[in-house]
Amino acid sequence: MSNLEFFRLQTRQEVLALYPRFAPVGTEEVDLAAAVGRVLAAPVMAPEAVPGFLRATMDGYAVRAKDSFGASAGAPQYLEIKGEVPMGAVPERGVAPGEAWRVPTGAMLPQGADAVVMIEYTAEHPDKTLEVRRAVAPGENVLTPGEDVRAGEPLFAAGARLRPQDIGLLAALGITRLTVPRRPRVAILSSGDEIVAIDRKPGPGCVRDANACLAAAQVQAWGGIPLLKGIIPDDFPALRAALAAALREADLILISGGSSVGVRDLTLSAIQDLPASEILVHGVAIRPGKPTILAAVGENGGKPLLGLPGHPASAAVVMEVLGRPLLEYLAGLKPQASWGRTVAASLSRNLAGASGREDYVRVRLRREGETLWAEPVLGPSGLISPLVKSDGLVMIPLEVEGLFKGEQVEVKLFG
Amino acid sequence: MSNLEFFRLQTRQEVLALYPRFAPVGTEEVDLAAAVGRVLAAPVMAPEAVPGFLRATMDGYAVRAKDSFGASAGAPQYLEIKGEVPMGAVPERGVAPGEAWRVPTGAMLPQGADAVVMIEYTAEHPDKTLEVRRAVAPGENVLTPGEDVRAGEPLFAAGARLRPQDIGLLAALGITRLTVPRRPRVAILSSGDEIVAIDRKPGPGCVRDANACLAAAQVQAWGGIPLLKGIIPDDFPALRAALAAALREADLILISGGSSVGVRDLTLSAIQDLPASEILVHGVAIRPGKPTILAAVGENGGKPLLGLPGHPASAAVVMEVLGRPLLEYLAGLKPQASWGRTVAASLSRNLAGASGREDYVRVRLRREGETLWAEPVLGPSGLISPLVKSDGLVMIPLEVEGLFKGEQVEVKLFG
Repeated sequence: MSNLEFFRLQTRQEVLALYPRFAPVGTEEVDLAAAVGRVLAAPVMAPEAVPGFLRATMDGYAVRAKDSFGASAGAPQYLEIKGEVPMGAVPERGVAPGEAWRVPTGAMLPQGADAVVMIEYTAEHPDKTLEVRRAVAPGENVLTPGEDVRAGEPLFAAGARLRPQDIGLLAALGITRLTVPRRPRVAILSSGDEIVAIDRKPGPGCVRDANACLAAAQVQAWGGIPLLKGIIPDDFPALRAALAAALREADLILISGGSSVGVRDLTLSAIQDLPASEILVHGVAIRPGKPTILAAVGENGGKPLLGLPGHPASAAVVMEVLGRPLLEYLAGLKPQASWGRTVAASLSRNLAGASGREDYVRVRLRREGETLWAEPVLGPSGLISPLVKSDGLVMIPLEVEGLFKGEQVEVKLFG
Repeated sequence: MSNLEFFRLQTRQEVLALYPRFAPVGTEEVDLAAAVGRVLAAPVMAPEAVPGFLRATMDGYAVRAKDSFGASAGAPQYLEIKGEVPMGAVPERGVAPGEAWRVPTGAMLPQGADAVVMIEYTAEHPDKTLEVRRAVAPGENVLTPGEDVRAGEPLFAAGARLRPQDIGLLAALGITRLTVPRRPRVAILSSGDEIVAIDRKPGPGCVRDANACLAAAQVQAWGGIPLLKGIIPDDFPALRAALAAALREADLILISGGSSVGVRDLTLSAIQDLPASEILVHGVAIRPGKPTILAAVGENGGKPLLGLPGHPASAAVVMEVLGRPLLEYLAGLKPQASWGRTVAASLSRNLAGASGREDYVRVRLRREGETLWAEPVLGPSGLISPLVKSDGLVMIPLEVEGLFKGEQVEVKLFG
């Protein structure tokens, strides 16, 4: 009789609510050039203004806007050209009333100038007179100091994921080092006497260690560092020793175990025998993925240890539904709306839910005219290929008996 | 007078149609463990079947299904237990009529067995008699050889991007090395006498090299390898030498130049002076981003060189709209529907288009009840902060004069 019977299935929400007992991993400093896609550990504010000076945004002439008022092609205004401001240089002198300085795009405007007349609306006469054929308003064709960013302005909150444009803004401000949460180190152990390394030819009755590779790829895709710890024999001392070693090295331990009751019980015993071990969850009310274990091991709240089901589709779904939020939590991310990760689609057929469990159905997306169909890809959870043929998951909630053909569903996209 | 005047603005589609003249970068071999997110250079088919043997998917008893027919709790069938199949082992003998072998999940079924009776529906009597309380159909609770993947089955097309589950399937098949397109090496040159390195304090009239950092982050986020080549003085020999050196090393050259006509002309001359140089595009009918250059340099179709506009928002949009497809093309990717990268939203205000140009408007997404609003974030293209405040771009097509408040738009998401 399995130990499983002594545990009540917990809901996904109950499992997620346990995560705050774990301490997020620490932080590290990274160069700005390596920071794209990383998440800020602390808010960032602007140490200075951008731009730092009044800047031309067009090739033309820096003027006092007032001097151009009334100018038109039919009745131009005339100004005196006093020189040219070179790029990256401080103008020699200011602009007095009636004067103009030639400025290239990006140059600093001379004192007194408050606008740029685009070169297209001017003509230079041989006597250094500038003919202005269009009036400019103060501030036209210039960026004022602090117009992009004011000094002291809050820019990014802690937890913001840095996109290329964010890197650009930080570069403009000279912020070249950033504090970010370290990538969680995730030890992945495989157990099962029938499992062989992926570069070996399995003998009869044996299979390659696909689950660990799948989990490692998920960890990598989600920002963690997978540490593949190999295949541990179905043997208590070996399993316990491997788990203890992994705990010393990693922030999170995944054990990708067998599906048989015997192996699950062995795994559970080995986990329970670790120092300060506490089984928090043994059985989750999701389908597939029921035989999932979550434990806390060690002092001060412990490190999380996630025991994955043995069937590949179950393990992959548990990783999506429970592993990914755990990894994100450890990496200091707040759960946040992520527009890119779900898509609305119409269900292509009726679907019955799993009584008493949240049901995660693999679906393929297919566009037909204006309609995006979510087509269930069915098959036992011992198969990998239905996952490979799918684009994402549709969840049938606990309290819902099923979904109808044509119903609008939210597809949680893979990857 | 600028050289620009001699060129006709080209549409985005015209520019994209030029890409096939460039040779995609070559391929490299990577370990399966490093292949998540990479793209296959060639189709992959299954070298063998998965599973390779008849496999139990439940703990129970391997039987001839026929022997269980008619069994129920009230009228069980009785079979003779002949032994247990250990995990990863070949069963000693086959199952004769009237016999059963105990099997754990994942074990190989003995010859003759075609189903597994779940342990829950059985009882073992002390005399090794098995009481079967539920009938099983042939194939129940087993995976048949090749049920996941048949030997020789086509699995992935060339150009498929590998997701974690794909890695899992390849691992199951023992495919541990993969041929993928090399990541394109992208040299990024900055020009402009007003530009200083990001770790320096700019003097008056100078600014830090934000555009190159932004472009490098984009290249990295999109799977390329950015090579930051630093800041080149606004000087013909220096610019030409730097471009020539970059061409020897990189697959694609980005020059993030100044916006002034003088600097643009200088850049253009330096590009034209390179060996076998051909200016393909000088000016694109998009806003922002008009002053974009595309050249082919060198023999055999040449390597692509993209001259980016000087304003940061213009450069970022050109990279999204033209640079990203070019990078993907060089990396051997076929343009494909990517469900995750756009989202449908309602425009929050009227928007006028750019006459004669495709207009790319930065928008922020805001959910209000059931409605996802796309709110334009306006501001001159010399600013970076509107990009930072945005979630994506809405395109107003060439032939459209504008979009109305409430209109359904497709938002191309950043990142």
